[in-house]
Amino acid sequence: MNMSAKRTSIEERHLSALDDQLAQLWETILSRSSLVRCIQGGDFDARLFAIYMMETYHYTRHNARNQALVGVRHLDLNIRYMKFCFEHAAEESGHELMALHDAISLGLPKDVTVPEPMSETDVLIAYLYWISANGNPLQRLGYSYWAENVYAYVMPLLRTLQSKLKLKDSQLSFFISHARIDEDHAEEVRRMLLQHCKNPEDWTAVAKVMKTSLLLTEQFLNGIYEEFERVRSGQASAYSFLSDHLSA
Amino acid sequence: MNMSAKRTSIEERHLSALDDQLAQLWETILSRSSLVRCIQGGDFDARLFAIYMMETYHYTRHNARNQALVGVRHLDLNIRYMKFCFEHAAEESGHELMALHDAISLGLPKDVTVPEPMSETDVLIAYLYWISANGNPLQRLGYSYWAENVYAYVMPLLRTLQSKLKLKDSQLSFFISHARIDEDHAEEVRRMLLQHCKNPEDWTAVAKVMKTSLLLTEQFLNGIYEEFERVRSGQASAYSFLSDHLSA
Amino acid sequence: MNMSAKRTSIEERHLSALDDQLAQLWETILSRSSLVRCIQGGDFDARLFAIYMMETYHYTRHNARNQALVGVRHLDLNIRYMKFCFEHAAEESGHELMALHDAISLGLPKDVTVPEPMSETDVLIAYLYWISANGNPLQRLGYSYWAENVYAYVMPLLRTLQSKLKLKDSQLSFFISHARIDEDHAEEVRRMLLQHCKNPEDWTAVAKVMKTSLLLTEQFLNGIYEEFERVRSGQASAYSFLSDHLSA
Amino acid sequence: MNMSAKRTSIEERHLSALDDQLAQLWETILSRSSLVRCIQGGDFDARLFAIYMMETYHYTRHNARNQALVGVRHLDLNIRYMKFCFEHAAEESGHELMALHDAISLGLPKDVTVPEPMSETDVLIAYLYWISANGNPLQRLGYSYWAENVYAYVMPLLRTLQSKLKLKDSQLSFFISHARIDEDHAEEVRRMLLQHCKNPEDWTAVAKVMKTSLLLTEQFLNGIYEEFERVRSGQASAYSFLSDHLSA
Repeated sequence: MNMSAKRTSIEERHLSALDDQLAQLWETILSRSSLVRCIQGGDFDARLFAIYMMETYHYTRHNARNQALVGVRHLDLNIRYMKFCFEHAAEESGHELMALHDAISLGLPKDVTVPEPMSETDVLIAYLYWISANGNPLQRLGYSYWAENVYAYVMPLLRTLQSKLKLKDSQLSFFISHARIDEDHAEEVRRMLLQHCKNPEDWTAVAKVMKTSLLLTEQFLNGIYEEFERVRSGQASAYSFLSDHLSA
Repeated sequence: MNMSAKRTSIEERHLSALDDQLAQLWETILSRSSLVRCIQGGDFDARLFAIYMMETYHYTRHNARNQALVGVRHLDLNIRYMKFCFEHAAEESGHELMALHDAISLGLPKDVTVPEPMSETDVLIAYLYWISANGNPLQRLGYSYWAENVYAYVMPLLRTLQSKLKLKDSQLSFFISHARIDEDHAEEVRRMLLQHCKNPEDWTAVAKVMKTSLLLTEQFLNGIYEEFERVRSGQASAYSFLSDHLSA
Repeated sequence: MNMSAKRTSIEERHLSALDDQLAQLWETILSRSSLVRCIQGGDFDARLFAIYMMETYHYTRHNARNQALVGVRHLDLNIRYMKFCFEHAAEESGHELMALHDAISLGLPKDVTVPEPMSETDVLIAYLYWISANGNPLQRLGYSYWAENVYAYVMPLLRTLQSKLKLKDSQLSFFISHARIDEDHAEEVRRMLLQHCKNPEDWTAVAKVMKTSLLLTEQFLNGIYEEFERVRSGQASAYSFLSDHLSA
Repeated sequence: MNMSAKRTSIEERHLSALDDQLAQLWETILSRSSLVRCIQGGDFDARLFAIYMMETYHYTRHNARNQALVGVRHLDLNIRYMKFCFEHAAEESGHELMALHDAISLGLPKDVTVPEPMSETDVLIAYLYWISANGNPLQRLGYSYWAENVYAYVMPLLRTLQSKLKLKDSQLSFFISHARIDEDHAEEVRRMLLQHCKNPEDWTAVAKVMKTSLLLTEQFLNGIYEEFERVRSGQASAYSFLSDHLSA
């Protein structure tokens, strides 16, 4: 076995450890998520999806930005990785508009004011900027790694949601177009990890960010569910206005 | 004349005012530059070009980064302009390696240590980050506008330099490949200005950055010339080591 | 009643709403915290305190910095508030060394390497930078507000911990000296809020950051407890080394 | 001679080399400055001082901020130096208001709109942020070193200006109060340099920033003179409005 084959195989093993950890994390998250149970039980309405898309709008506005920040703040990056950061940022630019479009398509006014982000959304945004600007420059790949592979895990739920809310594919543009784009991205992220992670510290940093950002996303999902519960039970919520536009 | 034609024509007029200002600036700069006189007079050697390429290496390392920073730091950018910032950054990534390659090709050791940047280079770098992160988000286009159109003004000088130093085209890779790439960029920058500058304040901000960054580049060129004079007259310089490798 | 008295009274009401919200939050947190139960039950040892102090070391290293960042990133701050940000930062500088001292005092080598921060610590740090650099410039006061008043809530627990671990006051330097310093700080933060919060949006931003940062601290405390459980049950942990130095 | 005396003496020598370089720089600058000649010749009026104070307002607004940035962006600073950065920032906060006050005192409307900064002012601001956030954390002391000692060099000029314009001391509040404050600061900066510069690289970085920031200030002074010339000769200038308020 030559050196290069051996190296590849070590790195493939790291990647497959990431995959295992990811599968386990998703299992935990899906099994304990009240949002998932709520969707599976069918006990929800368009307001849930509107909240989801509006909060998605918020963090998605920052994704291209924090992705590019990796290239901005770290000097001496490998050039191919640097290029990846900026190209990836270019491709992600404006995706928040799809999320907003999907929310509005439910029956909201075109010039609707999106409420301030929930705390959980702020925290996710804050964390992604932090790990992009500081620490191991490769670690943001840990976020991309699960985010670009999310559809395997969430598509069944989205289809349940789509069918219950009678949504056309064009009303799920954020997810459906991402699912398409992200097939390529996922492959590229994989390649970046295999090419640029050189030592166990790199893989540890990537794994830590993968896990932390996914757990923050779990809290984001919980937050959405709680916000929806507040809206439907008539408690104070920045999303109460949805009830004026969307039938329960 | 319809509204849109009229708007275009106002913007074309702004652009053509930029062109006039630029032509005048270059005339001033070229006429008073000791570096230009030195090149035209033929009284220089490879050390001048080595200093030039090493200082170019320094600021070029930051160009993709400060270009991307425009997209990172301004929320609510027009999405097409945001995409342009990140795509442009991706295309500029790693260009510093061409500058380094050209310097080394003169006969320097492959692992040469590039001296710390001159003060003039630091100032140019600092300014480009500042105007990218703050103020009018369009203003960095003022830098791109002259930088992508630089070859009309400097190619004759480069050819003089090339012929005197007997350089192959491959030893001018930084300039020659840029000249090619930048034809497209220049056109794109033009389009960005026409599409996104909406009011006189935008054009004023762009013109100010164009002028200031070009004048800082003039000082950068002066700095290179003075450094070369120090090296060839045997005064203390971080570039003295060049004399061990490059014949005068 | 004159205008100024009336204004004060509105602002005093906002402040007292903050106090109520804070008391409720603490009640919730203290009642559901496994760390609190663990301390109250006496079922812990010095390793718990060492982990606590080391993670405290991590976020405390950033507190002066993110406090100062408020003044750095917002132009047009009220000058007295700006001064407060920098003075407060100066006073907080180096407090992480007290946390480290207290950890080492338990019996660790003087040159001990502090493990990388837990995810929960990273998230808290990230959030505090984010809300300091962006959004309402007053909002970081929401963090200071509870942090400077923390001792009323946690002193009983600390005394239990101190007595069980037989710690001298000098081994609780981080908490005890803070408790002293923070009396003044708490008063100043109070004054800043009363003087500078001008409208309901300011108070909302402050309350949001107060709540979010306290809930992130709850997760930080949970993280410490889980880390301690891993260490004492012999599971993999970056803190396993503590068992070599500290008797259970 | 003991070790500590010896170390001090090496550092004292570095400091005294700084002093020599500074004296020489000032000599060069004062001898070639058209602003200096203009003041010495008495051929100016209040508009010159107004421009000076308004541009001073601009960069002074950023001085406390970039000073604090040193402490924010560099982890692992010596704690006493970190404290100095924040304390110094606190003391500098709001000094721009003195500059504005002095300008208005000449006879301008209290709510005068300060024009956008000149390019030279932008460049100075940009540079100070850059060297504060990046590179050697001690290097900003090179700026403080000359700025806190500026009065020895410029007081005679200021007195000439004061006498010609018949200004009360209270109309020179920016300079006079600084002169007082800065005696202590200068001593502190001196102490910081002696205590924290540990190797030749530190001193080189400090000297480079001292020189570069002073030369940028020279260009700032030239810019003010040129702006004044434009105003008094009736050419286009953002400061033309001064002629409506201030007698020539």
